[in-house]
Amino acid sequence: MTSAFLHHGGRLTEAARRFGGDPGEWLDLSTGLNPAPWPLATGTTTDWAALPDPDALAALESEAARHFGVAPALVCAVPGSETALRLLAPMLAMPGRALVPAYRTHAEAFAISRPVAFGESPERPEAIVLANPNNPDGLLHTPAAILDWHAGIAAAGGWLVVDEAFVDCHPQASVAPEVGDDGRLVVLRSFGKFFGLAGLRLGFVIAPGALREPLRAALGSWPIHAAALAIGRAAYADGEWIARTRAELPRRAAALDRVLDRHGLAPQGVCPLFRYLAGCDAEALFTRLARARILSRPFANQPDTLRLGVPADPASLDRLDRALARG
Amino acid sequence: MTSAFLHHGGRLTEAARRFGGDPGEWLDLSTGLNPAPWPLATGTTTDWAALPDPDALAALESEAARHFGVAPALVCAVPGSETALRLLAPMLAMPGRALVPAYRTHAEAFAISRPVAFGESPERPEAIVLANPNNPDGLLHTPAAILDWHAGIAAAGGWLVVDEAFVDCHPQASVAPEVGDDGRLVVLRSFGKFFGLAGLRLGFVIAPGALREPLRAALGSWPIHAAALAIGRAAYADGEWIARTRAELPRRAAALDRVLDRHGLAPQGVCPLFRYLAGCDAEALFTRLARARILSRPFANQPDTLRLGVPADPASLDRLDRALARG
Repeated sequence: MTSAFLHHGGRLTEAARRFGGDPGEWLDLSTGLNPAPWPLATGTTTDWAALPDPDALAALESEAARHFGVAPALVCAVPGSETALRLLAPMLAMPGRALVPAYRTHAEAFAISRPVAFGESPERPEAIVLANPNNPDGLLHTPAAILDWHAGIAAAGGWLVVDEAFVDCHPQASVAPEVGDDGRLVVLRSFGKFFGLAGLRLGFVIAPGALREPLRAALGSWPIHAAALAIGRAAYADGEWIARTRAELPRRAAALDRVLDRHGLAPQGVCPLFRYLAGCDAEALFTRLARARILSRPFANQPDTLRLGVPADPASLDRLDRALARG
Repeated sequence: MTSAFLHHGGRLTEAARRFGGDPGEWLDLSTGLNPAPWPLATGTTTDWAALPDPDALAALESEAARHFGVAPALVCAVPGSETALRLLAPMLAMPGRALVPAYRTHAEAFAISRPVAFGESPERPEAIVLANPNNPDGLLHTPAAILDWHAGIAAAGGWLVVDEAFVDCHPQASVAPEVGDDGRLVVLRSFGKFFGLAGLRLGFVIAPGALREPLRAALGSWPIHAAALAIGRAAYADGEWIARTRAELPRRAAALDRVLDRHGLAPQGVCPLFRYLAGCDAEALFTRLARARILSRPFANQPDTLRLGVPADPASLDRLDRALARG
């Protein structure tokens, strides 16, 4: 399998080059992005000419903080939570540890990183990165279990970084409200996944001042582009859309589960943006779907697993159903 | 004077808060941005939903490389050249040195930075940052003088970073074509100034692989948002607009010079995006212009200097003329 597909989802141009068709014909189930994005107001235009306004940055961080349930002062907007982790890792200046399976950046961001099991207490200062819910397997831990782990990690002089890129559907599972200037807890949030607008490259770091201030310094005076400032702020303020989407995504995921169950593919995970298939012949399944112009997400080193994004509508789900039936 | 105005230009919201009026009424001459930006095609919409396409990133870098006159492989697109320098400085892992006066990030990006005079050869490994043309004084050095300096810096084990954020009107002065994998020369380019679209946060680093590769790793898989990929590529390909703007900006700057000369303010610098006034009472001049809702750019530690952006049109220039006449 081409390594392009094993690294990240969303490589539609590469998929079309490899398996044929126009990228526009493809059904992209290779990411965990909400395929029914927050609706941009039509006619909205961005003022690209001016430098981004520092007041607009503060307003975005404040609106996002309200959504996260934290004090605005703890929040630093970043051009993507992936970039943020890559900037934070050298600032932490200690070896990293990541779960298996995990989002690949969780290990890659550190010069040295070893696997870790959830709850395993380190004996030395180490930076442990956990996604909750986890990607790709969709496993969700309770805040109590995470905070318990944090206590042991902090006692050893380490840091716990909780990547909550996919937590928006489980607000009660977020540990963001536990971040404080005296803790060793960092939370990453992503705008693009739940709101389905990954092209904006917008994320947030909720961290103690000891990390937040060097991060702000590294990003400089204008970390966020003009469109992300305006769209991010408006979307986080749209409580009605957020509530509706939190109800709708699990319904779509349940419909996908019924199709997968029918084909004998036991879906795993609780995050309603994707499902994880373990114990399958991933290469064969990936290729079968690709021939039907459906892009799924295989993983390097885990040849028996595949991740599927949740289709946006019945027509897309039916297309997947037919591709799976083709055998 | 409020420190907001001494740090960076473009603080219109703060200016209106401080001196009155609506930000929209203000004439912003506090930046070095082209006030007549590259025209975005009306009706152009950005696909914010998908992750930015790696092919589109390669196409942007390739088009930008053509404009810079360098091999595409040497070019790394970054979310703003200011952020790029802040990321590069710790990678260089040596003390910094910056000209006086200079863009403030040139010193701030380094944990330790001392002033340097142009051409001064260091005796130890140091990272020297030079803007060409320089900001705020608009001084332009020849490529021969810069390359000569680079030879001495490289021999001492240092690096020369040439910030060419304002070089687009002087393409023959760029040393970008001299960057190679075996040199110690780095060039920064900015998209937003010449093209007048600073809200995009788009810049480029042209550097040897030893720096380019860690920089790419720090930025992660999707360093550039979807709109910057599309707009940047189209603008760099618009040779007709680039040629016309290269001819027009110096005409506008000459018109500003005539007005400033008439008011006894001897303008300095060759960059047609701004003019530097030295030996003036900057606070008094800043305040007089602010009362007429014109924002200029004063500098900390240089109370006798002011920078003025070049007005876009005769009406704006006339407004400046009248404010200066008011005495």
